[in-house]
Amino acid sequence: MNIACLVFDQITLLDAVGPMEVLSRIPGASVRIVAPENKPLRSNKSGFRLIPDCVLEELTSADIVLVPGGPGVRPLLEDKRLLDWVRGVHRTTEWTTSVCTGSLLLAAAGLLEGLPATTHWNALSDLERYGAKPVKQRVVVDGKIVMGAGVSAGIDMALTLASLVAGEAVARAIQLRIEYDPKPPFDAGSPDRVDEIVLDLARGGLDKVSAV
Amino acid sequence: MNIACLVFDQITLLDAVGPMEVLSRIPGASVRIVAPENKPLRSNKSGFRLIPDCVLEELTSADIVLVPGGPGVRPLLEDKRLLDWVRGVHRTTEWTTSVCTGSLLLAAAGLLEGLPATTHWNALSDLERYGAKPVKQRVVVDGKIVMGAGVSAGIDMALTLASLVAGEAVARAIQLRIEYDPKPPFDAGSPDRVDEIVLDLARGGLDKVSAV
Repeated sequence: MNIACLVFDQITLLDAVGPMEVLSRIPGASVRIVAPENKPLRSNKSGFRLIPDCVLEELTSADIVLVPGGPGVRPLLEDKRLLDWVRGVHRTTEWTTSVCTGSLLLAAAGLLEGLPATTHWNALSDLERYGAKPVKQRVVVDGKIVMGAGVSAGIDMALTLASLVAGEAVARAIQLRIEYDPKPPFDAGSPDRVDEIVLDLARGGLDKVSAV
Repeated sequence: MNIACLVFDQITLLDAVGPMEVLSRIPGASVRIVAPENKPLRSNKSGFRLIPDCVLEELTSADIVLVPGGPGVRPLLEDKRLLDWVRGVHRTTEWTTSVCTGSLLLAAAGLLEGLPATTHWNALSDLERYGAKPVKQRVVVDGKIVMGAGVSAGIDMALTLASLVAGEAVARAIQLRIEYDPKPPFDAGSPDRVDEIVLDLARGGLDKVSAV
């Protein structure tokens, strides 16, 4: 099973690494990391420097493609070469997947026209611009398109997909392997369950607070 | 706040990226990725190629240091240069942290002598060899040492630490930013809650099953 993961400058790296930690453990999985340019790129905030295995034109088909999100998505929404690649590889896949604002790239490529779709809670309305129907759901399965909501939702998305691809025993074993028994110290993972102060911080205020 | 994240060949990348996605969002955070060698390295399974920002000798102090795990930990347990670096940087930190088998490196460096400690469920007994007291707990705080259990536990560890460093409102805002509202499709994140078949798969059987 060939798995292709798109990366780009200013990616939110957990969008990609969460699901890849799951999908790469499916028996027989083979992974390639693909980027627009064959040069080092930097993840947003977390600051990791990555080198891809190949550029878009060198990877034209995959069994599973993963499109992650992050601030680096914005310039790509108008990038004809990238959107052509998304459309082209999607024609070859068994499963086309996204995490966070990665779904905006699927939508901009025309793959979500009229379909229910999810993304980061703060970007749901952007999906409408491309004709998708945003739903507040952590994982959305639309035929062969599987989408996770914001950032960490990619882990839930990938475990769901692993069970579709390889059965529940394998998916459960992968969940155990990555010890995914989440115990968040707070109940603040949804905008519906926080106060205005926390919401403002999460919407951008964190970048404006002075150093602690 | 200077945050240093150790990386090495055959790292389990989610161990590092989960917490860094949280810690790098603390207001004023500045991130550096440090490795034993100044050359590209490859993450285990997920297959990402990384380039560090600097080598061990170029980073001798940090406010927070993060030591992740993965199969690449094993050769480092006997690596005097790496263990000296862990001890040295630990003397300068406000917080020394680990995820998964990263705690074996803290233990091998002599930092966990007689202390309660956690790691991946499948490596708990290894901690004893270095004089630590393994506890089945997702997050352990021992003075300035903060440890997460296996792989995905790093996210819970880092949110706990973010609240200690920057207060609960900031920690909650970061949790919302990364939409950490986990909904695992299965209840299989702990060895106590799976059957023998799943346990065997997670203990290594996944690598022996033929391709799906």
